[in-house]
Amino acid sequence: MTAGFASRLQSAFTQYGHLCVGVDPHPFLLDLWGLDDSPRGMFEMSMRVLEACSEHVGIIKPQVAFFERHGSAGFKVLEDVIARARDAEILVIADAKRGDIGSTMEAYAATWLGIGSSLESDAVTVSPYLGVDSLAGTFDMAEANGKGVFVLAATSNSEAASLQRGRALSGRTLAADVLNDVSTRSLAMKDAGGFGVVLGATLRLEEFDVDTSSAYPLPVLAPGFGAQGAAVKDAQRLFGALSQNLIVAQTRSILEAGRDGVAEAVRREAAETANALG
Amino acid sequence: MTAGFASRLQSAFTQYGHLCVGVDPHPFLLDLWGLDDSPRGMFEMSMRVLEACSEHVGIIKPQVAFFERHGSAGFKVLEDVIARARDAEILVIADAKRGDIGSTMEAYAATWLGIGSSLESDAVTVSPYLGVDSLAGTFDMAEANGKGVFVLAATSNSEAASLQRGRALSGRTLAADVLNDVSTRSLAMKDAGGFGVVLGATLRLEEFDVDTSSAYPLPVLAPGFGAQGAAVKDAQRLFGALSQNLIVAQTRSILEAGRDGVAEAVRREAAETANALG
Repeated sequence: MTAGFASRLQSAFTQYGHLCVGVDPHPFLLDLWGLDDSPRGMFEMSMRVLEACSEHVGIIKPQVAFFERHGSAGFKVLEDVIARARDAEILVIADAKRGDIGSTMEAYAATWLGIGSSLESDAVTVSPYLGVDSLAGTFDMAEANGKGVFVLAATSNSEAASLQRGRALSGRTLAADVLNDVSTRSLAMKDAGGFGVVLGATLRLEEFDVDTSSAYPLPVLAPGFGAQGAAVKDAQRLFGALSQNLIVAQTRSILEAGRDGVAEAVRREAAETANALG
Repeated sequence: MTAGFASRLQSAFTQYGHLCVGVDPHPFLLDLWGLDDSPRGMFEMSMRVLEACSEHVGIIKPQVAFFERHGSAGFKVLEDVIARARDAEILVIADAKRGDIGSTMEAYAATWLGIGSSLESDAVTVSPYLGVDSLAGTFDMAEANGKGVFVLAATSNSEAASLQRGRALSGRTLAADVLNDVSTRSLAMKDAGGFGVVLGATLRLEEFDVDTSSAYPLPVLAPGFGAQGAAVKDAQRLFGALSQNLIVAQTRSILEAGRDGVAEAVRREAAETANALG
């Protein structure tokens, strides 16, 4: 029996630290790398990133949108990237931000968290617009399969505040409501800590009524470091108690180093993350 | 120059009426149809549905999740289904519910609304959890390419109410805020009416402060009829002025008729929709 996602995540933190490298074959980055905007170009970039991560990074986050842009051929590349990363015992968080109802959401869960699925990952990001409870089947499948789930709570983009700082019927902000619901579920599961949230590092979390001091320290996937503006050295200040299980997502700051610079950029960011979070 | 999505939608309404048939190769439906839960089985079901729609229905809505469940092979089938439907001049609304930020969201838009993309559809459903303004690039691409966008506002599932009836910083409910923002954008575009919202037919829309009487009658994609509980004959009462551009999505009530009954079920639902909405 494989350890659950929470245990595998702790092992990754211990062995490699809190850095998670984004695998985003963005057209502009492919161009910067001298690669074609094609499945072949995406494959080459992704393999080079995996190679750079080897022995330095325990977690990657492929951005599904860039693979999906090339349709079935792009998904074939993504299948290869995920399988090779997992063979190398790198945890894969598929950044898919899926969200739907009932059995449709279960189909998404089966895609990303199903044992033996061609896109089987270690965890997936999901969107709560249809209600956190609409994700119940996803949480159940994740728990049964030893997988992780990260629910969007407060995202790093400025356009999101008007909605995510709004109030759910509970009276809490949407972001705090998601955090509360996911915390409860994460704490109650058999391998506690397998469910987490996405909180942008660029935000003033108090504006979202997100309490970083007292909450159950569930895993937090945090984009917004590096190119988007937040400094890794501020991670503890920004996330308080939640920094204990913080996943520092870095993409642009690494991939913009180009194919010849990516390995060094990974080592630099891994060292900086270790300095900030131990 | 092809007509914009709003014009193509009006033509579909005029020629075939307001019914939109869901293409959902759900494992349980495949089994009911005596088909394997495989790309081949999904292809056969989808082709049979397209055949049944021919000359009776102007709009289909493939549910992306069920194709995605089979990874790249499933996406290959979806590419075929979309291309064949569009060759037959059936409008395709890809039910993908994608939502992300900035250039990542633009990658999703390029996937579903890009001219020449292997998954090029006529319209796509998107999620506003990252803010309606995070979809700006998607609206721009849709307008440039003559495509449609449907933003989730109030969905048909009961778990969504606590969030979607909550209040954005504007003071409006989330659902009303989405409707307001999308209406403004839809009215302002060059082929007005290309952007719409998703509103569940199972809801009491007044509980979401959604005003069905006075809003600009943008297109509304409405799941929730049939198996989920709402009656098509009540469409005008439920959606008021918005019923003018209502897209009545029906899936289970048609697909549960099985492979031998699907053609008759399509005709029955098309006739019922015509009775209710003209």
